[in-house]
Amino acid sequence: MPADLPTPHVTVDADVLERNLTAMAARAADHGLALRPHAKTHKCVEIAHRQVGLGAGGLTVATVSEAEVFADGGLDDLFIAYPIWPSPQRAARLRALAARVALRVGVDSAEAAEALGRAVPGLEVLIEVDSGHHRSGVDPRSAGRVAVAADQAGLRVRGVFTFPGHAYGPGRQQPAAADEATALAEAAAAVTGKGLDAGVRSGGSTPTVPFSGGDPLTEMRPGVYVFGDAQQLELGGCAWDEVALTVASTVVSRSGPKIVLDAGSKVLGADRQSWATGFGRLLDHPDARVTALSEHHATAILPDGVPTPALGEVLRVVPNHVCATVNLADDLVVVSGGDQVDRWPVAARGANT
Amino acid sequence: MPADLPTPHVTVDADVLERNLTAMAARAADHGLALRPHAKTHKCVEIAHRQVGLGAGGLTVATVSEAEVFADGGLDDLFIAYPIWPSPQRAARLRALAARVALRVGVDSAEAAEALGRAVPGLEVLIEVDSGHHRSGVDPRSAGRVAVAADQAGLRVRGVFTFPGHAYGPGRQQPAAADEATALAEAAAAVTGKGLDAGVRSGGSTPTVPFSGGDPLTEMRPGVYVFGDAQQLELGGCAWDEVALTVASTVVSRSGPKIVLDAGSKVLGADRQSWATGFGRLLDHPDARVTALSEHHATAILPDGVPTPALGEVLRVVPNHVCATVNLADDLVVVSGGDQVDRWPVAARGANT
Repeated sequence: MPADLPTPHVTVDADVLERNLTAMAARAADHGLALRPHAKTHKCVEIAHRQVGLGAGGLTVATVSEAEVFADGGLDDLFIAYPIWPSPQRAARLRALAARVALRVGVDSAEAAEALGRAVPGLEVLIEVDSGHHRSGVDPRSAGRVAVAADQAGLRVRGVFTFPGHAYGPGRQQPAAADEATALAEAAAAVTGKGLDAGVRSGGSTPTVPFSGGDPLTEMRPGVYVFGDAQQLELGGCAWDEVALTVASTVVSRSGPKIVLDAGSKVLGADRQSWATGFGRLLDHPDARVTALSEHHATAILPDGVPTPALGEVLRVVPNHVCATVNLADDLVVVSGGDQVDRWPVAARGANT
Repeated sequence: MPADLPTPHVTVDADVLERNLTAMAARAADHGLALRPHAKTHKCVEIAHRQVGLGAGGLTVATVSEAEVFADGGLDDLFIAYPIWPSPQRAARLRALAARVALRVGVDSAEAAEALGRAVPGLEVLIEVDSGHHRSGVDPRSAGRVAVAADQAGLRVRGVFTFPGHAYGPGRQQPAAADEATALAEAAAAVTGKGLDAGVRSGGSTPTVPFSGGDPLTEMRPGVYVFGDAQQLELGGCAWDEVALTVASTVVSRSGPKIVLDAGSKVLGADRQSWATGFGRLLDHPDARVTALSEHHATAILPDGVPTPALGEVLRVVPNHVCATVNLADDLVVVSGGDQVDRWPVAARGANT
């Protein structure tokens, strides 16, 4: 890794990234699915253009401000996979966006559909349904009712979508993918039963992709696959040689098998699901664990038989949840064969509105 | 709160902040302790100057880059409470800093002391000791050995410090404060036993302040007290009327007693200690809990008898760990009596190196 840069810094292996992008594009094509990658993971205009170049029909984003950043970056087909509430200022921004890119947003209630129709007439929407994650989204059987409300409010209904977030747990990927298929099929039937369009049936997440085939899905929206992370390693959603993003950090303190690295939660993020084996992994020591995390300290324990790294040694930390890590960085240091080849701004960092 | 700003955004109540700053300054004076607030919490030059105006002798920071930001902001007495490893680029930055402000750094091993002495001759250091948190820091009885190494390496030893981070748990504040006092006394004795200076005996953290008296402490370094957060509420480290910082967020989805707010982990942070009752609290509904957190969704459950807030309603979320929240924001919206009165840049956001 680049020797002169201050640690901690976030590095992306360009060769691993390219393999990940190519593999997912091929997988989508094999399944006959449109690929609309979720750009909240990488937040980089450079990566978005490469995804489109490899065949993605457009991007998914989480917020209006992410959509604005990618529209500014020349991406012209954006889906905000979120139940938008059109406050006056947000409605004005949506109208401006809809005038310059192909735009779709999510809606999950008749009340929000009516407000959105008044605020942004003619906007394309997908009805969000709950496939088992129990976050936002209506019951699939109610998708028809919401679609009718959207249609009557002057919105253009284009289909349904879901996020099978309950796939994030050991052994839950295949059942969550099945739930996703069932929910999208039910929701699509409910929408077409009202004489409305359910041509887009969008699902997918990195861990469910291996279990998501074609029909009823027409589109998938994985995000994390571009970089991989410790969560995906532990769920089987990526392999070690598919980890493209790591945080370069320096050993600043050591005692026995314990080391303290200068990458803490303010660079890695503090995400830790109950099933995770630690707060992160070390790329060069797969059996080590980050056992504790403060804002500027990662405590890691090396396994028996591994010499404790020296003070000043730089190690590569694999964060638990890479989306959080990227959002904490101003830019990504792009490396190839150990050399720095580029530096990409995290253009949509902090784009939460 | 300001009506026209897009949510989510981070607000600070200027009146509550001022009361918190004044109360801590008075408490330090009552205990006969120097106050050196940890600026990693607020990362704002404006708040730092107010702390100094109320009697703080200098600031504590966590990183060299935080020190650079506050030096640029006109703060001239800085302690980097971290075991610094002087890589060549970091050493050059430390030399530049030491030339323009009163600077102290931490050191927790003879090896690091020798490297630091070669890299930044004459630098003032405090020996970091482990008082029970088991992160960085030497055993207090070894503080004399590290101090001798530092002295022989050409550093100027000024005393000892510790962070009683094991206070972060229910009922652990008083025992951790006792551990801190014991460790600092032992370490100071070990240093003075070698004929070196242990005049500074620095400890403290927001939850231990009520239990930290005078001797052996000469200085305390609380950070979170300026804003409070849900962790402090649940540890007894602050009261509800001492919560100065909240995240304004909009109800975007609802179902029964469940609401979904547009403030997720990318604005609140994902910190959740095992003893925390949720991922955050709601300022206006003390009995509600944030029960799940995604990047852009906070799921909250309202207690029985509380009407479910309407779609579009803006609620104030109290994050679990305010240091993480501030570091995710570009600026803080300062309010007084419900009106926006200022906007402060988070000058040291992302200053991790």
